[in-house]
Amino acid sequence: MKFCSACGARVVLQVPLGDNRPRHVCDDCGAIHYVNPKMVVGALPEWEGLVLLCRRAIEPRRGYWTLPAGFLEQGETIAEGACREAREEANANLALEALYTLFSIPHIAQVHAFFRARLLDRDFHAGEESLDVRLFRENEIPWSELAFPVVHKTLELWLGERESGRFRTHTGDVIRTAGGKAWPRFTFRSH
Amino acid sequence: MKFCSACGARVVLQVPLGDNRPRHVCDDCGAIHYVNPKMVVGALPEWEGLVLLCRRAIEPRRGYWTLPAGFLEQGETIAEGACREAREEANANLALEALYTLFSIPHIAQVHAFFRARLLDRDFHAGEESLDVRLFRENEIPWSELAFPVVHKTLELWLGERESGRFRTHTGDVIRTAGGKAWPRFTFRSH
Repeated sequence: MKFCSACGARVVLQVPLGDNRPRHVCDDCGAIHYVNPKMVVGALPEWEGLVLLCRRAIEPRRGYWTLPAGFLEQGETIAEGACREAREEANANLALEALYTLFSIPHIAQVHAFFRARLLDRDFHAGEESLDVRLFRENEIPWSELAFPVVHKTLELWLGERESGRFRTHTGDVIRTAGGKAWPRFTFRSH
Repeated sequence: MKFCSACGARVVLQVPLGDNRPRHVCDDCGAIHYVNPKMVVGALPEWEGLVLLCRRAIEPRRGYWTLPAGFLEQGETIAEGACREAREEANANLALEALYTLFSIPHIAQVHAFFRARLLDRDFHAGEESLDVRLFRENEIPWSELAFPVVHKTLELWLGERESGRFRTHTGDVIRTAGGKAWPRFTFRSH
């Protein structure tokens, strides 16, 4: 951020009065421009024991498989956002069940929430942001081609719990531990 | 938003290619400025059956009582943010337990998360954003002077569950149903 979005003047990075961290402040009109983490909301859609995954048509991680998810928008609830993303990416109609995972990813300033969900029908097909949408049995899940660590972890937790039929909400953090930008390594910290 | 924060030119409200809602787009450099909901993170700090509340020294709702909470910052996890807010507002040291409530508040584009927590000591005192910090027994909770509906609901759920000692994570939405800006009315929708 270099310019004030309210008046167009230059901004400077300084700690406002009564604050304790640097913000972009406008020298001219005094506006303080806060930047905060974003939420990504999605679902784990299930159909007779199979799970729906989307193959990404866009970066990051084009060509890799993911649960339908995306940025929460102004004016919607996290449940509404999760259903909207499933419609946009997979033309899938969902009935949400409970919140299943909630992960902080501090190095990219995001918080990801996934709901367990039932697919209401099999009339799904790839939206603009997907190359393909498919239902996978447990032994078909493309583990080495999953797009994101939170998708891997959410599927792993779900497969571990579904035999018992007792699901709980899992919360934790995804911490980047090593590796370059191309092949980062992560560890999960549960709450 | 009137000006591009990247180059200082005027922005226009338009639907970018491949998108489906209006964004502030720079006519000059092409930057798209997304605005997304913010997360507020906090805790319900408990000490021998009493709950810690802070009396707000700042607007909105100055003079009203609240659980310590505030905006999640870049680079922190929701657990770290909840602990930081308790330190800033109440100089309180917490050990977090599980995530307790997660509420979407779509009309203000916020999502609020509260953890159950144990106070580690009684050396708390009001920070800059609080007029007072106190421990309350159940029959002392100032229900008519609570700052926000999510605080009311989180306390109500906690009091209802603590006799059993079995807490679950509650998720839902706070929907504004009626009333003016001064005396709005809300309803809770559980997931």
